[in-house]
Formats: sequence, structure tokens, C-alpha cells
Amino acid sequence: MIIAMTSDATEEQIEEVCESIRRYGYTPHLIRGEERVVIGAVGQGDNKDHLQNLRSVPGVADVVPILQPYKIVSRELKQQKTIVRAGDLEIGGRQFIVMAGPCSVETREQLMETADAVKAAGAHVLRGGAYKPRTSPYDFQGLEVEGLKLLAEARERTGLKVITEVVTTEDAGIVAEYSDILQVGARNMQNFALLKRLGRCNRPVLLKRGMSSTIKELLLSAEYIASHGNDQIILCERGIRTFETATRNTLDLAAVPLLNELSHLPVVVDPSHATGRRSLVRPASKAAVAIGADGLIIEVHPRPQEAWSDGPQSLTPAGFAEIMAELQKYVALESRYLN
Amino acid sequence: MIIAMTSDATEEQIEEVCESIRRYGYTPHLIRGEERVVIGAVGQGDNKDHLQNLRSVPGVADVVPILQPYKIVSRELKQQKTIVRAGDLEIGGRQFIVMAGPCSVETREQLMETADAVKAAGAHVLRGGAYKPRTSPYDFQGLEVEGLKLLAEARERTGLKVITEVVTTEDAGIVAEYSDILQVGARNMQNFALLKRLGRCNRPVLLKRGMSSTIKELLLSAEYIASHGNDQIILCERGIRTFETATRNTLDLAAVPLLNELSHLPVVVDPSHATGRRSLVRPASKAAVAIGADGLIIEVHPRPQEAWSDGPQSLTPAGFAEIMAELQKYVALESRYLN
Amino acid sequence: MIIAMTSDATEEQIEEVCESIRRYGYTPHLIRGEERVVIGAVGQGDNKDHLQNLRSVPGVADVVPILQPYKIVSRELKQQKTIVRAGDLEIGGRQFIVMAGPCSVETREQLMETADAVKAAGAHVLRGGAYKPRTSPYDFQGLEVEGLKLLAEARERTGLKVITEVVTTEDAGIVAEYSDILQVGARNMQNFALLKRLGRCNRPVLLKRGMSSTIKELLLSAEYIASHGNDQIILCERGIRTFETATRNTLDLAAVPLLNELSHLPVVVDPSHATGRRSLVRPASKAAVAIGADGLIIEVHPRPQEAWSDGPQSLTPAGFAEIMAELQKYVALESRYLN
Amino acid sequence: MIIAMTSDATEEQIEEVCESIRRYGYTPHLIRGEERVVIGAVGQGDNKDHLQNLRSVPGVADVVPILQPYKIVSRELKQQKTIVRAGDLEIGGRQFIVMAGPCSVETREQLMETADAVKAAGAHVLRGGAYKPRTSPYDFQGLEVEGLKLLAEARERTGLKVITEVVTTEDAGIVAEYSDILQVGARNMQNFALLKRLGRCNRPVLLKRGMSSTIKELLLSAEYIASHGNDQIILCERGIRTFETATRNTLDLAAVPLLNELSHLPVVVDPSHATGRRSLVRPASKAAVAIGADGLIIEVHPRPQEAWSDGPQSLTPAGFAEIMAELQKYVALESRYLN
Repeated sequence: MIIAMTSDATEEQIEEVCESIRRYGYTPHLIRGEERVVIGAVGQGDNKDHLQNLRSVPGVADVVPILQPYKIVSRELKQQKTIVRAGDLEIGGRQFIVMAGPCSVETREQLMETADAVKAAGAHVLRGGAYKPRTSPYDFQGLEVEGLKLLAEARERTGLKVITEVVTTEDAGIVAEYSDILQVGARNMQNFALLKRLGRCNRPVLLKRGMSSTIKELLLSAEYIASHGNDQIILCERGIRTFETATRNTLDLAAVPLLNELSHLPVVVDPSHATGRRSLVRPASKAAVAIGADGLIIEVHPRPQEAWSDGPQSLTPAGFAEIMAELQKYVALESRYLN
Repeated sequence: MIIAMTSDATEEQIEEVCESIRRYGYTPHLIRGEERVVIGAVGQGDNKDHLQNLRSVPGVADVVPILQPYKIVSRELKQQKTIVRAGDLEIGGRQFIVMAGPCSVETREQLMETADAVKAAGAHVLRGGAYKPRTSPYDFQGLEVEGLKLLAEARERTGLKVITEVVTTEDAGIVAEYSDILQVGARNMQNFALLKRLGRCNRPVLLKRGMSSTIKELLLSAEYIASHGNDQIILCERGIRTFETATRNTLDLAAVPLLNELSHLPVVVDPSHATGRRSLVRPASKAAVAIGADGLIIEVHPRPQEAWSDGPQSLTPAGFAEIMAELQKYVALESRYLN
Repeated sequence: MIIAMTSDATEEQIEEVCESIRRYGYTPHLIRGEERVVIGAVGQGDNKDHLQNLRSVPGVADVVPILQPYKIVSRELKQQKTIVRAGDLEIGGRQFIVMAGPCSVETREQLMETADAVKAAGAHVLRGGAYKPRTSPYDFQGLEVEGLKLLAEARERTGLKVITEVVTTEDAGIVAEYSDILQVGARNMQNFALLKRLGRCNRPVLLKRGMSSTIKELLLSAEYIASHGNDQIILCERGIRTFETATRNTLDLAAVPLLNELSHLPVVVDPSHATGRRSLVRPASKAAVAIGADGLIIEVHPRPQEAWSDGPQSLTPAGFAEIMAELQKYVALESRYLN
Repeated sequence: MIIAMTSDATEEQIEEVCESIRRYGYTPHLIRGEERVVIGAVGQGDNKDHLQNLRSVPGVADVVPILQPYKIVSRELKQQKTIVRAGDLEIGGRQFIVMAGPCSVETREQLMETADAVKAAGAHVLRGGAYKPRTSPYDFQGLEVEGLKLLAEARERTGLKVITEVVTTEDAGIVAEYSDILQVGARNMQNFALLKRLGRCNRPVLLKRGMSSTIKELLLSAEYIASHGNDQIILCERGIRTFETATRNTLDLAAVPLLNELSHLPVVVDPSHATGRRSLVRPASKAAVAIGADGLIIEVHPRPQEAWSDGPQSLTPAGFAEIMAELQKYVALESRYLN
């Protein structure tokens, strides 16, 4: 932590800050510049928050943290890329992983039809929401346990792995029973009670970046899961909220290589929620491959016009198959393979 | 819902959209402009999402919703301002309500000292976090039940009402046992499972606006609570996340009179989290009164430098007393009273 | 400037960074923490950009600037508040200044009617756009010189000072001939050629904060004007662009007391552009007074429904007179006077 | 334009709105829903702003524009992609165009060395700033005319085309004399005086998206240039300002295919300014190709550590040559060629 004093700070104020630093268990190091004094606080100390509090002490201009606060998920700690395993499927390895399926599980027919289609097109994981976090209480809230059972049935039928969202600690157990991968939605990225619960779960977790979460906050949320015992974490960039409304969100693709620098966890991209427009899913998927993502999670619906949620961004099975065929060549350029 | 066709849409495409509108249970109304056709979809229909899906149909340029999706919390439905009652305390009436206390309950001494001080200065409610949602898993996570008990003790001692945050459905029961008002934090504003649970709770709820939530989303989250049975809701503006980093968040004060136009629920302002700087709390509090807020929630700590969280934005008891004295005059100009 | 090394930086890398710092004319100061080395670069050096370049050198984790880059406009340099003078009018002193008038100068009748009305209600300055920066080339672009002449006529008639926008260096001379205060619009806040030109102008400048400009950038733009010779600068908060669309912009009122801490320049608030809604102008104006602004700039139109621009946010003369009457009491609480 | 009435609007209010619509030269069309009345305003009318003004009329809930306000640059008007010509170079055709060079022209040696290197690596256009819009008045402001002459010399030497920024109307003539393509920087995207001036210029214009400009505003700024006579416009996505600070800006890559849907103008991507980090330029460049960009503009400096501006994001000539070699394969997948 670096404490910058104001240019008119007195020697007494400087000494007082040094004294506080010592009292909090750190060692102060002074740098006397021409215009002002800057103090580094070194050591483990009691509590970084105490140093932050110096921000409001007379003579202090600013308090600047130097260290990244995440550890377990950081590349500095572990150079080697993590491979997340869902049964025999590896995410983060040489295979490029595609997860596909409807926004919501609606009916048996809808789900089986989609599962068959995405399987045939080469997807590896079936996505589908059984518990739906919807902005309005009057929107469809999901089939819940019935949806989980349909997902499990689709898995039996196709051999696809299954991913679905868990929205509250109380459901974590039942969802983990049915699903191969547990998804944390964007709105729950900082639901810390849920993250702690999933840290004690024996299932890989796909953690979606919150709509207005920084990359640092995403990694700290991953750190919650990891520090509670579960290091099988997949990060997911799904678009952030900005002033631009022409797309549903702003797809922050540069976050992918940056996350790869900062962390060893695999990173997948959700072009469907990020753009909110069917026509943009294909180009965004190709770009996600080219920028270094480890996989994609894409919405597919047999009849998007009839979808109970997210119709405008859902691909038809035929559209999805076309994208999969085209992706093959981009995946190869990255020295990876699709199937 | 309004469906705008592209300027080159064919008559077949227009008819197809009308047909879909009818199939979804709505009635289409055509407006033929000079450049393009616009279609209104009228009626209750099966599902607004179906209309949204038309966005991706050939010939459709845009789908624009007209109605606000919240109902119970809307001023259009209920003109009269809601008064929320916590025991004999009324929030949303002529009395201007001040909630004050530490970010976190840390120790018995810290809490009682603060409670005595804010009571003496004229506050009505004691705030203090027992369950703390912290960005990093390595930060202090709260005293939990022990903290709740200390809050209850402070209530006995001072006669202040108590407000504290509930972070997960599983804790809703125990928090409701000890606390007069239940707080939903910004990170949980769209934790819909929690909102539904609080809808079935017999306690007033203070709902903080999410860091990147629109006013419409805030009202829809309130609608979750209301539609599940609890209409005792206080809205709280606490700053939103923007590109500006000079303040912790950007205090959206104009949201207060706008919420007063759109909804009948009382609105309070949290100048501490919004600005993140002690020196800005006083001017922001005065402005909150002048712009029409029904109350304030302010962080006070006996020794901000030693605070385990949010020290830089916490007032000292003396600083808080000064603000309370000054607010008196501003509150009076609004034809309200403080004590 | 502080350079933080990565935790695995080698001694060679550290030495290389120190060597670069010396080569750029600064002196390196090492702080050896338990996890990593942090280096302070002290002195005037050749160019701060050179230090920034270290960001991409092997072994460097981050480069953190410590000093604020603005000087002349900073409170650290000059404690005493600046009073800007437009003839006998003082902005930044004990008098609270109100500037009012139409968005655009449309016709002689419209301007004179407005000028008479705002003068009668107690305004000090008449605003009105002669050169209009409009998002679309098909919108009304202003009366230009004819508009300037009408403003000058209104000044003769009422005794009000006049403020109008200058949109390009080429017009700076002619606008300065007719107008008492020159306004730089939000879209031109970083039109540095214009700022330099106004720095050589003998007229006070009102500098509007850019739609997505930080407070630091606003002060640096003021520094452009000041460093080119003109220290008669009024800062203006007019709302920033965020994800929220319920208001036209997000009024960042907390920026007012923050600017008062960081700079000695007077600060006024534009509640009309910030909110974009007539009904919010009154509460936002009261809040601006209470939070410490030195003045307001408000849009008034005799018949807002017929306005050629910004009708929805324009007050009627009657509405403006009501606000002025109410503001009187809030201004008095701040130990200031209106008239 | 669609005018939605409130649910409690009276018949008188509805009639009054219809009357206003007629008075403004439009024809009202009523749609009576179960909850409220919605009115379409059809025709060319006098002024769309007048309709916007209805927003503040009693009984009106909202005014929603339906038409996109840009015309000349719109795909609806012209299906065929525009090819911009700079001499014999075509931008927007089958060749993928790469512009490369230093942020600022610093010295003769620096520029010639860079020009030779980027030419050898296969670039088509040399970039380099002679007039620099810098946030701080104390930063290097460019070599101005001397810089233009060096660029012209580098063109003679290498055969590369030259692109450089014009920052004010007064310099447009001289810059057009020396440069093949005129660049409008992000901060000047809404400098409408400059856009009008470039509309009367006989040179292609590269228009950078403003830091906080929507896609609609970018297209309206292009419309300014086009409607003043110059249709040789290249759009440039260079990152937008968001809450995320880990990258310099947030690269909005999905804007590329969206711009291709909405407009016929070519689109290039600036991965250097968008990310601000050298290590992200390579992956972002590949992604830009894959998502459908027509070209790239990349910062290259012979010794980034010594750069007078933007060193951390500048590539070395060797790094640039590597990227060019790798891009070849991605460009081929898009059925385009590089050289």
C-alpha cells in the first residue's frame, strides 16, 4: 500500500501516518520527492482496511493499493493453466468446448429436440435454465426440479454433459445432483453466500462476470469459490453494461486474453447474452476463438420465435450447425480442435 | 408493444407479423407512415416475450415496449404515498428519518458507543452490518448472529430501531427475529430468491439500488417483494457505478424525485457509500433533503481510522452531530421535521 | 510515479528499471516488501510518459501516478477561491448566480420575451445558443451571427449579462465581441484547439464537463485555458453519460463539493441538460444550492412545446419564477444571497 | 414517432395531443389498448423536436422515436458496401488494410525507421500524429507542420499512403495538402464544425468513434460529413469508456458487424488505443479480422520505451511483423487478402 501525502503535509502529519502504519503491524518506508512525501507500507499487518482508512487523515492525499488481492486464482501463484474436468470432458485444454441449448427448459419436446440438434452439430455440453433469474416477477421463472430432470434425461439420451444455473444456496444440493457443471449467473456473481456454498461443492462451476463487474472483482469472486475448497472454476465473459444500447450488453472480448494473463483458469465467452442479437452471434463466436477463448456458451432454440425467453438472440439448430462448421477452421488456426 | 417494420418490408412480411401477433393473443393495429409501417400490439396476450421475439423476424426493424412492467409499486396504480412502519416509526411521512451507525458491528464497545452517540444526535434507526458481503474473501465477513444480538442489545439500551443486512435466504428468519428493518444490499438487488423470501416476511425491507441497476430494475425488484406479499418497502439510492473514480460511486440524486414520480414508495439516500469520502457526506446529505428524500442512512464510527470496513467514508460522532444540527433547517424548508 | 514489480521479478529486472528511471532524469527509491519490490521515481525528469512506458517492461506489474497533473487550477496551489468577473457581476462570491434562457435563440420575439421574464424573476445572466452543436446534421443549427446580435439587443434592453456557446476557433472572436461569458459545450470540453484559443481571450469562460469526462479531465481542460493566459474560468457540472436512460444524463452533484476541494474555480450546475425533464429541474436546483454550487444555468422558453430544441426540459417563465422564489430560502441557508 | 399516453389520460388530453401533432404538420393515428392509448405521428412534419416536446405535456407518458435519423450512410438507403479510395488503395474491398506507425511523429529518424519497418512487414498506410490532442496541456502537443512534412517524406520513401489527425477547422487545409487520409480523433467525433469542414474536403476521412459515443451518434457524425459533400468515410472502433479500468478502454468488437448491418461504410479497428496494452494488441487484431473488420490501425514504435506518447501500447517493429504474418491466415479465412 502506498500513502501519498499532500504537498503541504507537515512533518508531524507524516510522523503520525508512519506511527499509524506501525500500529497496524506494517513497516513505513518514506520516499521524499521534490513536491511531496510518499510512504510505502510493507509487511503483512493486521488488516489492509486500516491502511485504507488513512485516506481520511489530515495531510494524506491518496492511498493506493499495489498488490492484487486475489491469490489462488492468480497466474503469479500458478503459472500452469488449469484444466477443469466434467467427467471425461476437459475445459481449458486443447479441445475447444461448445455449450449450447435453450435459455430456458420449457418442455420435454423442446429440450430433446434441441439436445439432439446441438449434439449432431458437435456441441459438448447442453445448457438450459431450470431456475431463471428474471428482472420482472411476472416473467417465466423456470420449471425448477422438473427442468433438472429433463436435463438429466437429455444427458442420458445424447451423452452431452449438462450445465444449468443455481440461483440460491438452498438449491445448490439438488442442482449438483442433476447437473455436471453449475452455473453462477451474472446477477449472482457477488452473491457471496452462494459462492461459499459452491466452494464446498464437488462440481465444476462456470462463473459469469457480473453486468458491471470489473475483471478484478470477477477474479475475487472466483477466489471465494477457490478459497472455500473448489478450484474447478470456468470464467465466463458475457458482456458488460455500458451506455451503449444498440447491443444488449457490450461484449468485452479483450477481457479474454487479459484474464489469461492474470489467471490460470479457463475462460469461455457467451456471445448470445453479450450481443442480444442473433445476427451478431456468428461473428462474435469467431472472434472469441481468435482472441483465445477456451470455449463458447450459445443459446439455441428449435423455434426462437416461440421461445419463452431470449428469443431474439437464440439461434435455430440450422444456424448453430453452420457456425460450428465455420468455427472448425478458426479453432484449427489456434492449434486446437473441436471434435 | 410497438413493432416498427423496415422501410423495405414487403406486404407479406407485414401480414406475417400481424399473424404472429394474433397467434400470441394480441390484436395488431397498423399505422402506415410515408417511409414505413408501424404495428401496435394491443391486449393482454400470452406472453410479452413472444412479442420481443419478433425483433428477429425478417422485415422487422425494432420492437419497442410501451408499458412499464411494474404495477403494484407504481404511482399510476396508487397515487397516495406509502408510509412504511417500523413499530411506531413512520418512514415516508412528515418526519425525516435518519439511520446511522457503523458499517460493520465490530465489538460490543464500538456498537454501544456509536448507538449512544447517534441517539444523542437525533438519529431514529441504528444501522450496523452483522453479515457483510465483501468483495474479497479475505476481508472481514461480519460477526453474524453475535452481531445481531449486539444490535438487539443496543436497541434495548437506546430505544433506536435497528436495521441490518440479510445476505441469503437461509438467514432471513434469524435476521428478522432481531432486526426491525431488513436491508437488501446493492449486490443482492437482483437476488430474486432473496426478494421472494422477503416478500413473505413480516418486516419492512430497505432495498438498495444495485450498483449498475436502472431505476426501472430497482422498481421491478421492489415489485418482486410486493408481489410476494410485503408492501412495506423503502427504496435506497446509494450511488451507481460509472466511469468516474474520483468518488466511490456516482450519487444519482435526481433519481429521488424521479422515483417519487414513478412510485409511491419512500426513498432514502446513502451518501456514505455513494461518495466514499467523509468530506462529501455533509453536503450530499443536505442536497438529499433538498431534492426530496424521505431519509438518510449514514455511516458513523467512534474511531473511523480503526474501522474494520469503510473507514474513509465514516463520520465521527461529533461530525455526525454537526450534520444533524445543520439538517434541521433544510428539513424545515421541506415542511418536514427531524425530531 | 510508483513502479510495482511482479512478485517473481528478478534482481536484473529491478536494476534495469532503476537504470531506466535514472536515464529519464528521475531518482529511483526501492521499497522491498515481503512479496515484491516497489520503486518510487522521484524528481522532475524529462517526461512522465517515459515512466508510463515502463508498464510494458518485463518484471513490471503496474505503474501508478501519484501527483495530480493540473497545477494552476488546483487548490493545493491557490487556497483562495477565485471570483470570476463579468463586468460588475461576480461569480464565485457571496452572490448566488442564476443564468437562464432558451436552449436556442429562435426569433427576436422569443428571446426578448424570455429575457424580460427571467430578468423579472431575478436571473443575472441570459443564456441562449446562437451556434448549436446538434447530434444530427438535420436538426436546427442556430441563427449564428444574427443570434449574437439578438443577444446583445436583449442585454441592452434588460441589463442582463449574456452567455452563449462558441463551437469553433474561427468564431471565438465574433462571439467574444457580443457575449459577456463564453461557453464551451460538453462535446467540446476536449477540443484543445478551442481551449487554447479561449486561453488567449479576454472574456470569462464557462467550461461544461464532457458527457464522459472525469473530474480530473475537466480540471485538465480548465488548465489548458488557464495555462494559455485566461484564469477567468467557471466549471459547470451538467450530467454525465451512464447506463441509466430514465434521465437524459446522470447529474453528478457530488462533483460540486469535490471540485470545491480540488480547485479554487467557481462551479455552477445545469439541471436542465443533466435531467432532461422539466419536473426534475426544481428539486435538482434546490439540491445544487444545498450541495454548495456557486450558481445555476437553467433553460427557460416562453412556450416549451414550440421550442426548436430541448423543449421537454425547458421551464415556462412562470415555472422559473416559482423556482427563483423558492431558491431564495435555500441560498440564505448557505449564507449567500440571490439579489 | 410514437406518443404513449398515461393510463389515466383524459379524452381531452388525448385530443389536445392529436391537435398538437396536426399543428406540427403530422397526422395522428390512435391505437386504443386496454390500459392506455398510444398515438402514432405520421408524415414529414415541420420538426421532429416539436414532437419530442410533447413529452412534457399532461397525459403523455413517453415519446418514442421509430426512425433512425441517419440516411445517406444507412444500409437501408444503399445496400452496396462503399469502397473508400486513397489513390490506388481501396478500403472496404477484398483487401484487408493495415495502417501502422507511431502515436506521434517525434523525429525524422524515428519516423523513417518505423515507415521502413511497417512497409517491410506489409502495412499499407503509415499513421503518425503531427497535431496531438493531449489531455494535459503539459504533454507533448506534436510537431505540427514539421510533422506533416516528415510524413510526406516517408510516403515518398516507402510508397505507403499516409494518415494523420486534423484537430481544428483552421488546419484542415494544410493537413489535406500533406495527408492521403484525414483522421478525426475520438475527442472530436462531435466537433461538428470540423465535420462540416471535412465534408467539403476532397480527401477520405477516418472517423473515430467517440469515447462515450453510441453507434447511432457515430453514424450521425458520419452523416454530417456525408451530407456536406464527402462520402469517402471510414468508421473506426477504438474502444469506449466504461467502468472497467484494467484496459485503457473497452473494445466494442461487436460494434463492427453491427455497423456492417446498419451502414455501408467500411469499418476498421484500433486495438492499440482500445486496449492500451501491448500484449493485447495481437489477440485483439486477430479477433477484429474474424469479426469482419475491413482493416486495422496499429501503433508501432522503434523503441516503445522511449516513445513520447502511448509507449505501453506500441508494438516494436518485430512484434508488428509477427502479427502481420499471423493475420495472413485469418484474413484468408474471411476470403480476403492482405498483400
